Amino acid sequence: MHGTLYLIPTPLGDTPPAQVLPAETLDVAARLRCFVVEQAKSARAFLRQLPMGVPVQSLTLRELNEHTSPAQVPPLLAPLLAGEDVGLLSEAGCPAVADPGAELVRLAHQAGIPVRPLVGPSAILLALMGSGLVGQRFAFHGYLPVQADARQHALRILEQRAARDDAAQVFIETPYRNAAMWQAIVTACAAETLLCVAADLTLPTQTIVMRKVADWRGHPPDLARRPAVFLLYHAPTADRPRARHRP
Amino acid sequence: MHGTLYLIPTPLGDTPPAQVLPAETLDVAARLRCFVVEQAKSARAFLRQLPMGVPVQSLTLRELNEHTSPAQVPPLLAPLLAGEDVGLLSEAGCPAVADPGAELVRLAHQAGIPVRPLVGPSAILLALMGSGLVGQRFAFHGYLPVQADARQHALRILEQRAARDDAAQVFIETPYRNAAMWQAIVTACAAETLLCVAADLTLPTQTIVMRKVADWRGHPPDLARRPAVFLLYHAPTADRPRARHRP
Repeated sequence: MHGTLYLIPTPLGDTPPAQVLPAETLDVAARLRCFVVEQAKSARAFLRQLPMGVPVQSLTLRELNEHTSPAQVPPLLAPLLAGEDVGLLSEAGCPAVADPGAELVRLAHQAGIPVRPLVGPSAILLALMGSGLVGQRFAFHGYLPVQADARQHALRILEQRAARDDAAQVFIETPYRNAAMWQAIVTACAAETLLCVAADLTLPTQTIVMRKVADWRGHPPDLARRPAVFLLYHAPTADRPRARHRP
Repeated sequence: MHGTLYLIPTPLGDTPPAQVLPAETLDVAARLRCFVVEQAKSARAFLRQLPMGVPVQSLTLRELNEHTSPAQVPPLLAPLLAGEDVGLLSEAGCPAVADPGAELVRLAHQAGIPVRPLVGPSAILLALMGSGLVGQRFAFHGYLPVQADARQHALRILEQRAARDDAAQVFIETPYRNAAMWQAIVTACAAETLLCVAADLTLPTQTIVMRKVADWRGHPPDLARRPAVFLLYHAPTADRPRARHRP
């Protein structure tokens, strides 16, 4: 009898866990003794805020991050195959969406291990909700290219896709490149394109601003050291068959 | 001074709110007196489970759904413009993602009304997490065409996009068409394509199964009357530049 792999979201910043995690997520996390985490140090800081009932130093924490080689991932399933439940933690937000944890979840399915995602904060999802840009469809692209020409090209492609697919286009950037990204967007994109910038989600400093590119120009947001999600949308221009809404 | 538009997630089924909604979401919902909801009847059933402090019949509920005409949406901002906070509720899960509430959020931004999304369950996000298919990118398509030929064509396009963009492709179906959708997928898609079917998310009957299309064939899941999310992924075949990971 295999254990269950629980996917446990964590707060997006220095927020008390109970403010952004529901009872079921808190309860499951507090009873587990074995975790796969992105960084052990921050995982311990999170777990110390929960009523674990045992010293956090006594918990088993194994790391899975961008330094983990493919050969090191399958052995992380060992406790699950031996019948123990395991919690997967990301650095912030929901594990296994655009982070190295997805590979562990995929292997768990292949091994017949039950996977149970739990509710918690996701910067991507909160930005999607808060933008007002998601009619029926959206696409998340992770990080765009860093190099200026390639980034401009990628932004123009996303703008075209928004109009072609009638879908919001979502991406992220590392905080110290946010200002350059904002500048690249207002330079590359059309005046009528809608841009939402959502920063510090769930934190006291949260801001979510959505306006036309024309109205953003000359008014750069202060995004220094703030985790941000960017969302672009451009309404379809040609006549298209109306998307299928709830039937 | 405008009120704030709070985006309040609701449980995905007959689940106690405190199990899947964190304290902040519960607290905000319980102190609001004015809501924009998809269906008044189910919104009242949700609000009756919260410590509202006043009779639920005394709350102001206005509907915004697929029957609402575009001209009827702007007046829903009136309480916000008059300084009152308003809660936006979807039928289930997170409002303003692939539901008519997105239009209200967009208008709120245009009017300078603060928008605050709160944490709660999203079938789309939980399916993304639980699938293990989301390395760095994904796309959500809402509903695919109903007509058989058009649906087959759409599925083949999604399979190609998965490989081209190295991105999981996500869509939903109404429960009574789930069996036909599953059959269409295993007929249209390649044997090596990965298919995840996530049903009854957050409910006691939850199942999340991910396997190759070849391994699904001949083993239809029982999806009758179960809300389900479908996810497709096909690894890129040609050599591609490796995606930018966390920098």
